[in-house]
Amino acid sequence: MILSLLSFSLTIAQAQINDGVLRFDEQRSPQRSGIITIPDVNGYKVLKCDFHMHTVFSDGTVWPNIRLQEVREEGLDAFSITDHVEGHPHSNEVITNNNRPYELLKSEAQKNNVILIKGSEISRLTPPGHFNAIFTGDLSDYITDRSTNEKDREALLKASDQGAFVFWNHPGWRLNIEGSYEWIDFVNDLYINKALQGIEVFNGFGFHMKALDWCIDKGLTVMGSSDSHNLIKNTYDIDHDYIHRTMTLVFAKDRTESSIREALNAGRTVAWAGKYLAGKEEHVRNLFNACVELMPDHYSEVTKDGKSTNYYEIRNNSDLYFELELRSGMATNKIILYPRSLQLISAESGQGSLTYEVMTAFVRSDKHLVVALPLK
Amino acid sequence: MILSLLSFSLTIAQAQINDGVLRFDEQRSPQRSGIITIPDVNGYKVLKCDFHMHTVFSDGTVWPNIRLQEVREEGLDAFSITDHVEGHPHSNEVITNNNRPYELLKSEAQKNNVILIKGSEISRLTPPGHFNAIFTGDLSDYITDRSTNEKDREALLKASDQGAFVFWNHPGWRLNIEGSYEWIDFVNDLYINKALQGIEVFNGFGFHMKALDWCIDKGLTVMGSSDSHNLIKNTYDIDHDYIHRTMTLVFAKDRTESSIREALNAGRTVAWAGKYLAGKEEHVRNLFNACVELMPDHYSEVTKDGKSTNYYEIRNNSDLYFELELRSGMATNKIILYPRSLQLISAESGQGSLTYEVMTAFVRSDKHLVVALPLK
Amino acid sequence: MILSLLSFSLTIAQAQINDGVLRFDEQRSPQRSGIITIPDVNGYKVLKCDFHMHTVFSDGTVWPNIRLQEVREEGLDAFSITDHVEGHPHSNEVITNNNRPYELLKSEAQKNNVILIKGSEISRLTPPGHFNAIFTGDLSDYITDRSTNEKDREALLKASDQGAFVFWNHPGWRLNIEGSYEWIDFVNDLYINKALQGIEVFNGFGFHMKALDWCIDKGLTVMGSSDSHNLIKNTYDIDHDYIHRTMTLVFAKDRTESSIREALNAGRTVAWAGKYLAGKEEHVRNLFNACVELMPDHYSEVTKDGKSTNYYEIRNNSDLYFELELRSGMATNKIILYPRSLQLISAESGQGSLTYEVMTAFVRSDKHLVVALPLK
Amino acid sequence: MILSLLSFSLTIAQAQINDGVLRFDEQRSPQRSGIITIPDVNGYKVLKCDFHMHTVFSDGTVWPNIRLQEVREEGLDAFSITDHVEGHPHSNEVITNNNRPYELLKSEAQKNNVILIKGSEISRLTPPGHFNAIFTGDLSDYITDRSTNEKDREALLKASDQGAFVFWNHPGWRLNIEGSYEWIDFVNDLYINKALQGIEVFNGFGFHMKALDWCIDKGLTVMGSSDSHNLIKNTYDIDHDYIHRTMTLVFAKDRTESSIREALNAGRTVAWAGKYLAGKEEHVRNLFNACVELMPDHYSEVTKDGKSTNYYEIRNNSDLYFELELRSGMATNKIILYPRSLQLISAESGQGSLTYEVMTAFVRSDKHLVVALPLK
Repeated sequence: MILSLLSFSLTIAQAQINDGVLRFDEQRSPQRSGIITIPDVNGYKVLKCDFHMHTVFSDGTVWPNIRLQEVREEGLDAFSITDHVEGHPHSNEVITNNNRPYELLKSEAQKNNVILIKGSEISRLTPPGHFNAIFTGDLSDYITDRSTNEKDREALLKASDQGAFVFWNHPGWRLNIEGSYEWIDFVNDLYINKALQGIEVFNGFGFHMKALDWCIDKGLTVMGSSDSHNLIKNTYDIDHDYIHRTMTLVFAKDRTESSIREALNAGRTVAWAGKYLAGKEEHVRNLFNACVELMPDHYSEVTKDGKSTNYYEIRNNSDLYFELELRSGMATNKIILYPRSLQLISAESGQGSLTYEVMTAFVRSDKHLVVALPLK
Repeated sequence: MILSLLSFSLTIAQAQINDGVLRFDEQRSPQRSGIITIPDVNGYKVLKCDFHMHTVFSDGTVWPNIRLQEVREEGLDAFSITDHVEGHPHSNEVITNNNRPYELLKSEAQKNNVILIKGSEISRLTPPGHFNAIFTGDLSDYITDRSTNEKDREALLKASDQGAFVFWNHPGWRLNIEGSYEWIDFVNDLYINKALQGIEVFNGFGFHMKALDWCIDKGLTVMGSSDSHNLIKNTYDIDHDYIHRTMTLVFAKDRTESSIREALNAGRTVAWAGKYLAGKEEHVRNLFNACVELMPDHYSEVTKDGKSTNYYEIRNNSDLYFELELRSGMATNKIILYPRSLQLISAESGQGSLTYEVMTAFVRSDKHLVVALPLK
Repeated sequence: MILSLLSFSLTIAQAQINDGVLRFDEQRSPQRSGIITIPDVNGYKVLKCDFHMHTVFSDGTVWPNIRLQEVREEGLDAFSITDHVEGHPHSNEVITNNNRPYELLKSEAQKNNVILIKGSEISRLTPPGHFNAIFTGDLSDYITDRSTNEKDREALLKASDQGAFVFWNHPGWRLNIEGSYEWIDFVNDLYINKALQGIEVFNGFGFHMKALDWCIDKGLTVMGSSDSHNLIKNTYDIDHDYIHRTMTLVFAKDRTESSIREALNAGRTVAWAGKYLAGKEEHVRNLFNACVELMPDHYSEVTKDGKSTNYYEIRNNSDLYFELELRSGMATNKIILYPRSLQLISAESGQGSLTYEVMTAFVRSDKHLVVALPLK
Repeated sequence: MILSLLSFSLTIAQAQINDGVLRFDEQRSPQRSGIITIPDVNGYKVLKCDFHMHTVFSDGTVWPNIRLQEVREEGLDAFSITDHVEGHPHSNEVITNNNRPYELLKSEAQKNNVILIKGSEISRLTPPGHFNAIFTGDLSDYITDRSTNEKDREALLKASDQGAFVFWNHPGWRLNIEGSYEWIDFVNDLYINKALQGIEVFNGFGFHMKALDWCIDKGLTVMGSSDSHNLIKNTYDIDHDYIHRTMTLVFAKDRTESSIREALNAGRTVAWAGKYLAGKEEHVRNLFNACVELMPDHYSEVTKDGKSTNYYEIRNNSDLYFELELRSGMATNKIILYPRSLQLISAESGQGSLTYEVMTAFVRSDKHLVVALPLK
């Protein structure tokens, strides 16, 4: 049969014939594992983590293994399946078992060299709203009764008693409800009792601006999560340039579960969503400095007015995205730094440094990172 | 809070601030419903159908609603969820119920104006292999015992008794097993008893070449299916140019379930996978003629040897893909017709027609469609 | 040599070896000719035209043939090379000859079935600014002296005397110059003397908003142009979804040069740039109606309050893009119609029609098209 | 005018209004400068160089500045404009001056931090064919008379006398001409006289297989070039994944013109085209080792037969592409390493190393690179 097919060379060149079955794989989606490039920050590895997503075991629409596939394809280092303890809309079809997603994925995640951290979402009425607990123990006996705030508190203390890391999810998701998106007593009580360690500043496509200020002012950890229920690819246009799920960048000593925990406890995180970064100024600044590099001038020309203009390359060595606007100095006014690319900028000679505002990096709800770039 | 954000214009231009929550949706995957353009063929609508896919209710990895989302995004007209009657690897987690995927999706499919046809895969050992039954009734009492061929036969006759349309799946998928990929007595018996009406010629990325000849010689219907277990987007690189799931193009009187059945019974189908079409010559030829149009010459020039060359546009008015090679006549030798595009070709004047072999269209396992294009 | 290469099958499957030269064309950019799909509008063909672009014969950076390649790849029907009569920055290298680009391209354009219309840009100081003349005659003796408005007038009347169609380019491109972007006497004089027939409302990425009102109020033709100096692909990200050069959609009786002229004279145009359309209300409305179709309801459900909701498909049968916002009626609030796609919308039953504002279609500088969609 | 536009928020969010001109830049092609990531190889920087391309100053179709734009966008380090000394098809329009492209681009290239090396193509009849000379002096008095081989020799010796680096272009481009694609006396004479230092092994999409063996056997430098006449983007589909122009990877001590020359003289190059590499084994191997990293095993499982399987990540830290097939050992059979991605592989425990054939890397015309990957 092979001989008679020789004339088909144009069309089946990529195909392989095997006993009368022709395989043509050229339209198959390549099964690659991505790498998100971010340089180390002050000796810490920058781990890409998403600690908030769902499966058919609560109100998601995928089997847990899809979550591992997605994470692997995108190049994340660590993730948690956080199905709702209380909400099981598929309970007529799927046997309720809050421990099951973790059990199903554990060894497959290890095999794939991705860190899976056990967790769950504890979804109470609003207020107080929803919380994620990660690094949890057995999830089978969490309190699901949502009738009183006392029950809410018990549910959260259960996680805390197991040594979990607890963060408040999307605090502003339900607006116009009294006590919603406010630092209410219930939350303050958790905070005082060390039963709340972080807040989602970015959740999906939402920037919960107050949460950034609360994290900074109260010493809580800045978190970013996809909160994905459907497929990542149905939510994010990730095949295109610099598009990625919302996540937490964790500055960890090592690529291990325990180092992630240590970093979360220490608050060494930056949330990353779309083009935007949000975090404590120190971390956002260190991250920027690790990624962006202003090279020494490589060319100089005398302009009509007798002054001299120098030319520089500014390089973005990461897969992050930055937009800069000049705030002081005589130089290129706006700079867009696409992932792993460089831009040419010019500056009048004789200046020691340039000051830019990084319009895509938030260090408070109303403040962008401002950087001084020394001219060499 | 809005006022203080005015200076953020560069970065949050697309965002909307609402009580302290900033929404930036620019990286969201657009939720569009695709349209696959194929002109009517001899008065029949060309419906894009996939009658073979799986969910968590057998060995798939998605909830049924994902299948509807995918179908809608890609622009299919009709589909079947065909979970295995006998195989339930998630039975520790998902309650076995072969009717459930259809029940869960029925009204949502109607709301989305997509035709959902009830079905199931009846997966016996190889040989005889796997069969799909669509237009089935209650799936709860199908025979799952795979110990004998007699049980296999009973399982398939059950479907046939319900009035189902039954087709043999990927007959060549298990090579080197005796009786596999052969027209064995078991299959012949089904065929004679009208309990087998079609065969998958394309399954995923595989072209089961013998199946095309069997369909033509025995009057069975040519089928193409994705047999998707995982996400379509993890299998097919569908965001790129002319990439689509494997499917059956059904030439139907109307866009209704009953018209699909009538067309399947009448064998009016072409299987479509990657760049390739396969089917009975009549249908493939009619489809080609409906999609491809050679325009009248629009330019003429005299060449050095005193002859005259005419220029023509050849248009592909469809989302299909064709590669042509000249077999007789003096004209452009190779033509690639990308979806909805046109190409310029030239031909020596004085010819009545050109003969091309359509290298991407199979009308037997060893034969491409050959077309005569009249020159106007 | 072929035999020893058989083991290379994985890598050189797409390649062809010929006497020791291996060809691997799989990364070659496919040379296709695009088709921009827009249905006929009230019996007129919608021709895609760009009457403003440059080459190395003035201040552009490409040889004329690149312009034809681009036009062909994108699927335009007609174009003009409009190099500046007066500005020849490459005159040390390129011999000044304003007729040359047309001469070089004429027969190649015919061969490619693209309509090339002779033209030139007459670039005077601002004010009055720049004008394009198309359907011109010999360009060798146009007045290039820009010292006085009288010379400017002579230059433009030369074109008018040749029977050219003259339009004012990007009237707002130089802001903050007295008399710039104003309807000054100079322009009015041309207008009164029928030596000005249109204005660019869209030029590249700029919407010259006053120009739309002038066109409507004074009966001038609405134009859109790329004004491309560099490569189209370096200016527009055209490999991505619904991105295209700025152009004029001309509603013409036929796909001929004379029909284009007739349509321009009659003002039957809509300018198209990015997601936006601009034109006289009648033409924009007719274009919308030709492209967008609200189908009869296909599904109905009773909601909790006892009311009934109907579901509809709304289809965009064109390569244009529309965003709609509901202005009256109870129905889906926002609709994005991507090119050749459909969306599902719902409406409370019992309504005769829905009113939407088409946010991407301008019929005055401060007014969008408003459409009533009848419910069937 | 701004106030009245507030209701347009959905559509013009990204736009900026300025005195009645609305700018909507969201479809503008981003002007970024690419970075092609390839790690240093044994202390050498890997410079991406293309020493063969054309402009309107010979038979190309672009102004020289387009070549700089392209080079910058793609991330090349160095390039030469090599217009034909003898062929000037645009001589009716462009004033013949072989020095002009270099003069026009010199300072702009410096400003952009790209190395421009002066050069020219000396195109003689076939045989002997075409040669490129780079690092040339004044090009105005090169011999263009192609009537005899003696004139050909003079033309090439002129370059050699100027100290140029000369390489033979696409030796197999004209097949079936006697003496073509052969090591003829004319070439041998140049070689003996040190007037020929390299050969194009890759030219555009062609792999001139004999040239690789000649380079290896005779100590000539392996070259790869685009030989671009038209736009790079019209030739290569470079917006897509791992597609790039054909080029020479030069292993240089520094990113300077003199270091490039030193490396070319020393033969430290690898040619790169599509998915393929070709070069002397030592250089190809060092390049592979610099880019590909097999990590220590991270997981182990006992299989049914009591054996143990270990899992490893294999990382491609470069923008190159590799396909590997197992030649000895028990492990994953085929590995595709997409740019900057990783793959999971498994191997039976107890093995010291695995041997793979790198199907995309040629170290002779009939030999791929074979690598031993030690298991840690």
